[in-house]
Amino acid sequence: MIVNGFVMNNNFNRKIKVGIVGGTGYTGVELLRILIQHPNVELLVITSRKESGLYVSDLYPNLRNHIDLKFSSLDNPELMSCDIVFFATPHGVAMSQAEALLKSGVKIIDLAADFRIKDVEIFEKWYKIEHSCPDVLKNSEYGLVELNRCRIVRSNVIGNPGCYPTTVILGLTPLLEHPEPLIDLNDIIADCKSGVSGSGKKLEISGLFSESSDNFKAYGVHGHRHHPEIVSQIEKISGKKINLTFVPHLVPMIRGMFSTIYAKILPHALDVDYQELFVKRYEHEPFIDVMPFGSIPETRSVRSSNNLRIAIYRPNNKDRLIILVVQDNLVKGAAGQAVQNMNLIFGFKETIGLDSISILP
Amino acid sequence: MIVNGFVMNNNFNRKIKVGIVGGTGYTGVELLRILIQHPNVELLVITSRKESGLYVSDLYPNLRNHIDLKFSSLDNPELMSCDIVFFATPHGVAMSQAEALLKSGVKIIDLAADFRIKDVEIFEKWYKIEHSCPDVLKNSEYGLVELNRCRIVRSNVIGNPGCYPTTVILGLTPLLEHPEPLIDLNDIIADCKSGVSGSGKKLEISGLFSESSDNFKAYGVHGHRHHPEIVSQIEKISGKKINLTFVPHLVPMIRGMFSTIYAKILPHALDVDYQELFVKRYEHEPFIDVMPFGSIPETRSVRSSNNLRIAIYRPNNKDRLIILVVQDNLVKGAAGQAVQNMNLIFGFKETIGLDSISILP
Amino acid sequence: MIVNGFVMNNNFNRKIKVGIVGGTGYTGVELLRILIQHPNVELLVITSRKESGLYVSDLYPNLRNHIDLKFSSLDNPELMSCDIVFFATPHGVAMSQAEALLKSGVKIIDLAADFRIKDVEIFEKWYKIEHSCPDVLKNSEYGLVELNRCRIVRSNVIGNPGCYPTTVILGLTPLLEHPEPLIDLNDIIADCKSGVSGSGKKLEISGLFSESSDNFKAYGVHGHRHHPEIVSQIEKISGKKINLTFVPHLVPMIRGMFSTIYAKILPHALDVDYQELFVKRYEHEPFIDVMPFGSIPETRSVRSSNNLRIAIYRPNNKDRLIILVVQDNLVKGAAGQAVQNMNLIFGFKETIGLDSISILP
Amino acid sequence: MIVNGFVMNNNFNRKIKVGIVGGTGYTGVELLRILIQHPNVELLVITSRKESGLYVSDLYPNLRNHIDLKFSSLDNPELMSCDIVFFATPHGVAMSQAEALLKSGVKIIDLAADFRIKDVEIFEKWYKIEHSCPDVLKNSEYGLVELNRCRIVRSNVIGNPGCYPTTVILGLTPLLEHPEPLIDLNDIIADCKSGVSGSGKKLEISGLFSESSDNFKAYGVHGHRHHPEIVSQIEKISGKKINLTFVPHLVPMIRGMFSTIYAKILPHALDVDYQELFVKRYEHEPFIDVMPFGSIPETRSVRSSNNLRIAIYRPNNKDRLIILVVQDNLVKGAAGQAVQNMNLIFGFKETIGLDSISILP
Repeated sequence: MIVNGFVMNNNFNRKIKVGIVGGTGYTGVELLRILIQHPNVELLVITSRKESGLYVSDLYPNLRNHIDLKFSSLDNPELMSCDIVFFATPHGVAMSQAEALLKSGVKIIDLAADFRIKDVEIFEKWYKIEHSCPDVLKNSEYGLVELNRCRIVRSNVIGNPGCYPTTVILGLTPLLEHPEPLIDLNDIIADCKSGVSGSGKKLEISGLFSESSDNFKAYGVHGHRHHPEIVSQIEKISGKKINLTFVPHLVPMIRGMFSTIYAKILPHALDVDYQELFVKRYEHEPFIDVMPFGSIPETRSVRSSNNLRIAIYRPNNKDRLIILVVQDNLVKGAAGQAVQNMNLIFGFKETIGLDSISILP
Repeated sequence: MIVNGFVMNNNFNRKIKVGIVGGTGYTGVELLRILIQHPNVELLVITSRKESGLYVSDLYPNLRNHIDLKFSSLDNPELMSCDIVFFATPHGVAMSQAEALLKSGVKIIDLAADFRIKDVEIFEKWYKIEHSCPDVLKNSEYGLVELNRCRIVRSNVIGNPGCYPTTVILGLTPLLEHPEPLIDLNDIIADCKSGVSGSGKKLEISGLFSESSDNFKAYGVHGHRHHPEIVSQIEKISGKKINLTFVPHLVPMIRGMFSTIYAKILPHALDVDYQELFVKRYEHEPFIDVMPFGSIPETRSVRSSNNLRIAIYRPNNKDRLIILVVQDNLVKGAAGQAVQNMNLIFGFKETIGLDSISILP
Repeated sequence: MIVNGFVMNNNFNRKIKVGIVGGTGYTGVELLRILIQHPNVELLVITSRKESGLYVSDLYPNLRNHIDLKFSSLDNPELMSCDIVFFATPHGVAMSQAEALLKSGVKIIDLAADFRIKDVEIFEKWYKIEHSCPDVLKNSEYGLVELNRCRIVRSNVIGNPGCYPTTVILGLTPLLEHPEPLIDLNDIIADCKSGVSGSGKKLEISGLFSESSDNFKAYGVHGHRHHPEIVSQIEKISGKKINLTFVPHLVPMIRGMFSTIYAKILPHALDVDYQELFVKRYEHEPFIDVMPFGSIPETRSVRSSNNLRIAIYRPNNKDRLIILVVQDNLVKGAAGQAVQNMNLIFGFKETIGLDSISILP
Repeated sequence: MIVNGFVMNNNFNRKIKVGIVGGTGYTGVELLRILIQHPNVELLVITSRKESGLYVSDLYPNLRNHIDLKFSSLDNPELMSCDIVFFATPHGVAMSQAEALLKSGVKIIDLAADFRIKDVEIFEKWYKIEHSCPDVLKNSEYGLVELNRCRIVRSNVIGNPGCYPTTVILGLTPLLEHPEPLIDLNDIIADCKSGVSGSGKKLEISGLFSESSDNFKAYGVHGHRHHPEIVSQIEKISGKKINLTFVPHLVPMIRGMFSTIYAKILPHALDVDYQELFVKRYEHEPFIDVMPFGSIPETRSVRSSNNLRIAIYRPNNKDRLIILVVQDNLVKGAAGQAVQNMNLIFGFKETIGLDSISILP
């Protein structure tokens, strides 16, 4: 994991002005944790529909003595003075405020899905809301830095990837970028497992401790919104139609995401060294760690960090490839990745504010 | 733990008709689990305001293939045909239906607080609702079998004890029944710890997995509704005013309650054998297990059972007495105790339906 | 789930004499919990190498006041007086005592692997021990009742299935019994998740709370002993070579197993109603619950019960079949299944002692 | 929480050479996490009896790509070149190496108990080992910075406080420093609760996930080694004999410690404003946060941070005082406090390396 050569100069001490819309959920507090400790960030405003007027640290006790801000209402004009605004809101909010902000020269990173799927029809089918600014969408960029670094740096609107898509796309990218397909594109399975914080701070029975502790289940087997997001990206990479089976599961832990990806190597590609392929692809990526052959990634090993770890398996050296991917769903899968995008856009060192060590045990 | 000599004959195969009002919460499903397996019970009706029409087993997957009933509406007339109706409802519901049921000859066990506190003023102060049937309250009985067996057997309305009170009262009873006080009544502390299911299946942020897992906290330090309930009972036992400090805490586990009770032995009572005192007091109680001196009770050892375990400590044989009490808050602290009351009232063997072994690990 | 028509008469009150060798692990205590409550069982002897002389209830506090036995040494002659002896021991112990017991007319159920794999060579390769009684092995039966009921009833030696194999084999059986293959036998994936108790009560760093809580990982990706066990059984069912990819994972919960099985429907079999196929296959099985189409099985719904639940998915009605299987790894995946075998062998009703309701929440 | 005025100049960029003896346990990995990110530390050597030769990051996956060191053997001569050596070892190791290190001018911070208790007799009674360097002990300092800042800064050997003592001593200090006792010194109770990591990375059955998850218990009620440590310190503060009742409990969470302390206000001190007393005492302490009256401290709010939070309660304004104290047992209760001592000794800003925000959720 060597620091990438793209943008490394962090010697200037410029501070950018940052706003957060909807800072009361789990991606919100995680954004706060990272941004408060970021040397190039001045946190200007945090809005909340429900908690307007409340001290942020009264809602999030971990932030006591670290932040003086109160939540303000959504129409806080200071948002317009920001260099960048993060939306840690439900789907549909960012698109409603995007045009006004852009006109004021404010850049946008949306942690919800408004700018993740380019095809408006597919977006509207899965999210059951009309897309109110298709033009902005057209010019937005999918914020998976490891895929789109060059485009993100020139973009004003970023759709920050979903948590599952981050693991599955990055787990498949080296296999799909190849000019000729290495694996059977009709036979890819992503069996994914997420900690409970992945579903946010919603008041749902299924999220209660007494319901989700000491329990394991699948969900969304008939269809999950991250499915079209993943497929659109991996089809873009490979340039071909892909048939992906995607089954998410819920793990009784707060943070962490583990994706077990199964691919079938095509006959002509049986001699490829897949470990080498992955190592090469990601060798300059600061946050992607291709572990040594035979490694056992654990979600806790990246808890609270922006690292994503990958281990490649090929049982008996046959045609089955197994790719294990772990990340912290709230960091690389959400807030950390958003800050990585911000760093890139403003020319900061990509790892700044994102290099702390995971907490273990 | 020998089976008590009070009511043991269970040779008749009579089945009583049982109804449950409000069977969707955790005490509701636990009542169902126990009553479905009870050989003398025919479950006639379960009502639910919200889930009327739904199969019970669709809400509670553990009951699939064990019960055919649907939830019915609150005004289901079959309630009037029951021998006994359990209220597993919020506070205030049982009192509103009590008189009608009693007129039809239906007995009542309320798992909420409507019939726990005899003093209407204190009840209304703590529960912020007017008591609508003080006459019924007057004739009701506090359903702590180990204290009130003789009165319960003749009673038509039972206020099933709160979970914390069950542990604290039973942990103090042998000390307080003594004609002369053995301990300083101004210096009793109950430091209590409960699993998360104790607060029910409510949609509250604090009950979410991501909020309560991997976390420990106190709550209600300024005042908790179980405090007046405990005090009224222990003052009744001792016949004297008692000053109790009670601090509840929340443990990241589903079930289980652990109370650490601190008492100060009075000078004249330093020679008493407290282990012996407790053993003697409870030797005929089928569900109270006074463990050998120096034992370490664990909540898991009584998980899913109606047993309550007590261990007595007296460090360096000085004047400090420590009483450790464990129970499953949903069983002995709620549904199991309610069925124990039912068994007693209908002349069944007290342990029938309540003698299964705890699940461990 | 209708009670099977095979052996239903439980009217005689005969008690059989039962012994347990190695009752200190988690399958041991679970066997004890079930057998103590079994109306046709007299528990005669429990041995333990390490704990000989200790009261069983001193090791397992949930059994206090339910059992008076002490652990005895391995050479306790009373084992020879038993009708049946369960081995809840490490691999290799049952085979060393099998012949002596059989000579005394004692039947054997081994919860370890000694009698699970008929091919001695494969057994020795995976378990790294020589098989000391290949003749006994030859006459033993694989104790998956739903597959081998007729043979088990005539058998004296049962190899109780491993936990993962129970879910994977039963999840595939309806697809493989068909005279013509319905699915691609070269493309079956079992992505399996187990609670921590699955690895037993071993003193290993990875089993510590601080290591396995709030964490998720795969293990044994390069090869797991349950792989050859599964393959040998499913190849026996189908009569053909099968290529199975099997990846086990560890879930931070005590009990529970969840297997997500992926199969590819062959072109000629696209019109089969797979839901119907599974329902039909298991309609008379008391412990197999094929849930309605679109159901979400949860491990907690079978916690502490012998039930195994299956849900079938076929996204967009294409060629991908997803089979979700849940069980309690210590019950249907170990001790419960062993007692199910015992019930069958001695002509008891198959569900006797195994019909309690799961604990939820 | 204002940064203390004692030592604040951190402008020089000096790096000190640091060694760790016994870096494989949980306090070891936590020391590593903090020290690797400390700007004034060069980590020179880490020893381990068992893991000598292994890369540190192979044992602790969170440290991958953050550290290149291997564990070395105990007699690594580089220890002598260090400015300071931390002992994260079992009791008895530090004392055996202390004199040699001190002769070489190396300072010592022992995270075990060798230098916590000044009275050799009491030490030997509780730890069952002879103290091999009573002279070093005499000149050592108890590393509770908030009590002993002036002495620590001049000391070469620090006994880093135990986790329970840190919470109980700091929770009582403002009450005991008063020239006249404010509380009854014969009636202090500390009901303490610890996460499982508090007992270290030991291979004990009780530490297994399947034993300690979903469970709560007390332990060491008859006597715990932290009892004499607490008593010796609080008696030193107050200058009087103190009778402390101390009951530790085990909480099913990885990190976190919660102490509920009960004191009885003496008649002459009923008018004291205790909230004010605590606020004043700790107003210049960077890591002690006296929360507003009525606050609910949670262990997760300080998870992974060096902060210790205190909330004061006085029910009905009577004579009972309740002090709630939370910390992360591995940070303020162990490794963080050790680094705080190091910062102080070497004239670094006290908070350097210790100011990251807690992870929540």
